[in-house]
Amino acid sequence: MKICVLGGDGYCGWATALYLSQRGHQVAIVDNFARRLWDHELGVQTLTPIRSMPERLRSWRRISGEDIEFLSGDITEYDFLSQVMKKVSPDAVVHFAEQRAAPYSMIDRKHAVFTQVNNVVGTLNLLFAMREFRPDCHLVKLGTMGEYGTPNIDIEEGYLTVEHNGRKDVVPFPKQPGSFYHLSKVHDSHNIMFACKIWGLRATDLNQGVVYGTMTDESALEEDLINRFDYDEIFGTVLNRFCAQAAVGHPLTVYGKGGQTRGYLDIRDTVRCVELACLNPARSGECRVYNQFTEQFSVLELAHLVQAAGRNMNLNVEINHLPDPRVEAEEHYYNARHSKLVELGLKPHLLSESLLDSLLNIAIRYSERIDPSLFLPKVNWRSAHNDRRQKSAAAGSSYEGPLEASAVSAGGNGHFVKE
Amino acid sequence: MKICVLGGDGYCGWATALYLSQRGHQVAIVDNFARRLWDHELGVQTLTPIRSMPERLRSWRRISGEDIEFLSGDITEYDFLSQVMKKVSPDAVVHFAEQRAAPYSMIDRKHAVFTQVNNVVGTLNLLFAMREFRPDCHLVKLGTMGEYGTPNIDIEEGYLTVEHNGRKDVVPFPKQPGSFYHLSKVHDSHNIMFACKIWGLRATDLNQGVVYGTMTDESALEEDLINRFDYDEIFGTVLNRFCAQAAVGHPLTVYGKGGQTRGYLDIRDTVRCVELACLNPARSGECRVYNQFTEQFSVLELAHLVQAAGRNMNLNVEINHLPDPRVEAEEHYYNARHSKLVELGLKPHLLSESLLDSLLNIAIRYSERIDPSLFLPKVNWRSAHNDRRQKSAAAGSSYEGPLEASAVSAGGNGHFVKE
Repeated sequence: MKICVLGGDGYCGWATALYLSQRGHQVAIVDNFARRLWDHELGVQTLTPIRSMPERLRSWRRISGEDIEFLSGDITEYDFLSQVMKKVSPDAVVHFAEQRAAPYSMIDRKHAVFTQVNNVVGTLNLLFAMREFRPDCHLVKLGTMGEYGTPNIDIEEGYLTVEHNGRKDVVPFPKQPGSFYHLSKVHDSHNIMFACKIWGLRATDLNQGVVYGTMTDESALEEDLINRFDYDEIFGTVLNRFCAQAAVGHPLTVYGKGGQTRGYLDIRDTVRCVELACLNPARSGECRVYNQFTEQFSVLELAHLVQAAGRNMNLNVEINHLPDPRVEAEEHYYNARHSKLVELGLKPHLLSESLLDSLLNIAIRYSERIDPSLFLPKVNWRSAHNDRRQKSAAAGSSYEGPLEASAVSAGGNGHFVKE
Repeated sequence: MKICVLGGDGYCGWATALYLSQRGHQVAIVDNFARRLWDHELGVQTLTPIRSMPERLRSWRRISGEDIEFLSGDITEYDFLSQVMKKVSPDAVVHFAEQRAAPYSMIDRKHAVFTQVNNVVGTLNLLFAMREFRPDCHLVKLGTMGEYGTPNIDIEEGYLTVEHNGRKDVVPFPKQPGSFYHLSKVHDSHNIMFACKIWGLRATDLNQGVVYGTMTDESALEEDLINRFDYDEIFGTVLNRFCAQAAVGHPLTVYGKGGQTRGYLDIRDTVRCVELACLNPARSGECRVYNQFTEQFSVLELAHLVQAAGRNMNLNVEINHLPDPRVEAEEHYYNARHSKLVELGLKPHLLSESLLDSLLNIAIRYSERIDPSLFLPKVNWRSAHNDRRQKSAAAGSSYEGPLEASAVSAGGNGHFVKE
C-alpha cells in the first residue's frame, strides 16, 4: 500500500515508517520537526542520539534497499497538505502529527492554546484534504486511551450501548479527558466522526495506551536508525522515564499513591497495530475506534517491576512518592476492552523482564546524556502558569534547576515520601 | 450583580444586556462587531434596522437612566481579555461571543477552521483569564441543544447515569453534534468541564434551543433599541425565517420531510434564563448544564403554525419541501429534559398565535429590506466547498443569485415539492 505517515520523525512515527517500509509498503513521511523544536524550547534531549532525517533515510536505503519519501512541512498549512495529498495519492494516511504531551499542554495558556489549535486544525485540514483530493483514502488517526478518563464503568472501544428510560441506542463513549492535550484528541475524535458521517470518509481512531520501549526490529538494525527515548517530565512516558531514573540511581518518581492505572503497549505493537488498521480499512462513512494497548498496569506496579529488574542488574532502585502534579484519581476502577486489534491478528509483546533489561541497558549505555534535573515534575495542573522557560546563560545558569517539590504540591507538605 | 456580556452586540447578547441592565445589574458589554462583519461578508442584513453601539447605548441611557459600559475588542486576544477582567471585575461573565451559525461553519474549510479556532480559543482564553484574575467569577456559557444531536434515547441535562456490566456511573451525556459549529460548542463544553475540575472554577453551560422572536420588553421601548432579526439561510433561525418568507409571499423553505425536531424558546425566555443562571451561581468546581428551551417542535409543525397565522392575516402561505442541505435525520425520536431552569423560576412564554402575529407584523413592516434570494439554502453539508462569496459588482451583479435546488440535492431530483 501507499501509506503517508504524518509526524514520521517522532517517537511512534519513525518506528512506524520503518516497519511499514520493511513490510513492503510504499511510505512517505511528512514532518515539520516540531518535536525536535520542543526539545530545544524545553532544554531537553532524547536519551538516544537520533540522527537527522537525511541521515536516517540514507541509512535505511543502504540497509533495506527501500526508499522512504520525505516531505518537509506543516499540516496546519492547507496548501502544503493539499500538495502532499495530490503528490503522494496515499491509500492510507497515518496521522501522528500532533503535540502529544499532556504536561506540555498544561505549561500555560499559550501551550494549551497551541496544542488545541495545532492538533484540531491539522486534523480538520486533513479531513478536508481527504474529501477534496482523496475521498477513498483511509485515515488511521492516533487518539489516546486518555480520552476516556477513568470512569467507574468498563471502557468500551469507542461506542457504548445505553439503555435509558426503556429505550436503547449506541452512542459515542462519553469522554472525560485529563489535560488540554487529551482534550484536543477528544475534539479530533468528534470532528472525525462527523466528517465520516457527512462525507463518507473512512477512519480508524486508534485510542493508544502509554507506549514503552524504543527498539523495533528495524531501528535495531543500525545505530543510525535509532529511535527517540524521552525521559524528561514533559515528554518522557512513565516506564521509559523510570528506566532512565534507575540507570543513574535516581529514585523513581511516582506521582501520589501510584494507583493510576492505564493501558500500556510495547512500541513493537504500536507499529503492528497501525499496519493491521491499514490492511483492514474502514468502510466508507465508518469511523471505527480501536483501543490500542495490550496490558493494564498501575504506575506503582511499573515502579516495582523496574525495581525488581534493576535488582537483578545490581542497581539499587528507590521509589519516591511525589505529590501528584496532575489532577487525577490516584486510586480508581479501570477496565478497558482491547480485543478488536487482537481479532485482526495482533500478537502482543507483553511486558517482560527481558524487555525491562533491554530498556535499562539502553539507559545505562547513554546515561552520560541524562540530565537528572529533568526528572522532577515542574508542570502543575492546578497552576495556570508554570515557568518552563530556560533561564538565559547570562543569568549564570543554562537551565533552571528543578523546582522544589512544594511547587507541585496539591496542598500537602511538599516533601517526598520514600517507600 | 456586576455582569460582563461577551458578544453583547449580537441577537441574544443585546437582548440580554438590556434585560440585565433593566433588572438593576451593572452590565458591561464586550464585542468586536464580528457579527456585523459577517453580514457584510455574506451580503445580508438584519430585517430590522439595528443601530450602532453608541446610538444603542445613548438611547438606553436616555430611556432607562442606566449606563451600560462598552469595551470594544476580541476575546481571542488574551491581553485585551485580561484587561477586561481586571477592569470590570465581574461577578458573572455571560459568554455569547462565538460564531453561532451552523451553515456559516459549513461553507468551506476556512469557515470551519475559523469557527472552531475562534470559539475554542475565545473560551480557553476566558477560562485562563478567570483563573488568573477572577477565580470566583461565574461563567454562564451559551452552549446549544445541537451538541446532543438526535439520539434514540431521552436527552438529559448534561449528564447521564449509565449502568454497564453491573457497574454504575454518572458521565457526561454523549455528544453527536451536526456541524463544525455545533462541534465547536462540544469542544468548549469539554474544555469548561475540565477547567472547573482542575481549577475549581464555577460554570453553567446553557444548552440553548433555537431562539425565535425579536422583541423583549426592553428592546420594544424605542426603535433605537431594536434587536436583530435574521432571515437569511445562514444566520436566520427557522421560525424567524418562515415569518419573513410569509410576509413577502415566498414559500416556506422546509428542508426534507421537516420531521427534524428541536427545542425552541422565545428570546424573552433566553434573557430570563441567563439572569436565573447568574442569580444562582454554580459552586466552585461545579460545571452545571441546563437545557434552555421551553417547547419541542418539528420544522413542519412550525411551518403549519406560520401558515395558519398567515391565513388569519390574509397571507397566502405555501410550504415547499426542499432537498435537505444538511446531513441529519429527517424523522427521529426526540425527547429532551428541560426542567432545571423551570425549577429556578422560569415562567415560559410558550409559542402563541399572538407572538406569531407580532413576528409576521414586524416582517411585514420591514419587508422592503427583505432580499428573497437569501432564503434558499446555498450551503450543502455534503460539499466541502460552497461558494458564498459575493460576486464583484464589476461582474455585472452585486450579489450572486440563489443556486439551483440541485446544488443542495442529496441525490434526489433536485426539484422543489409543493405541499
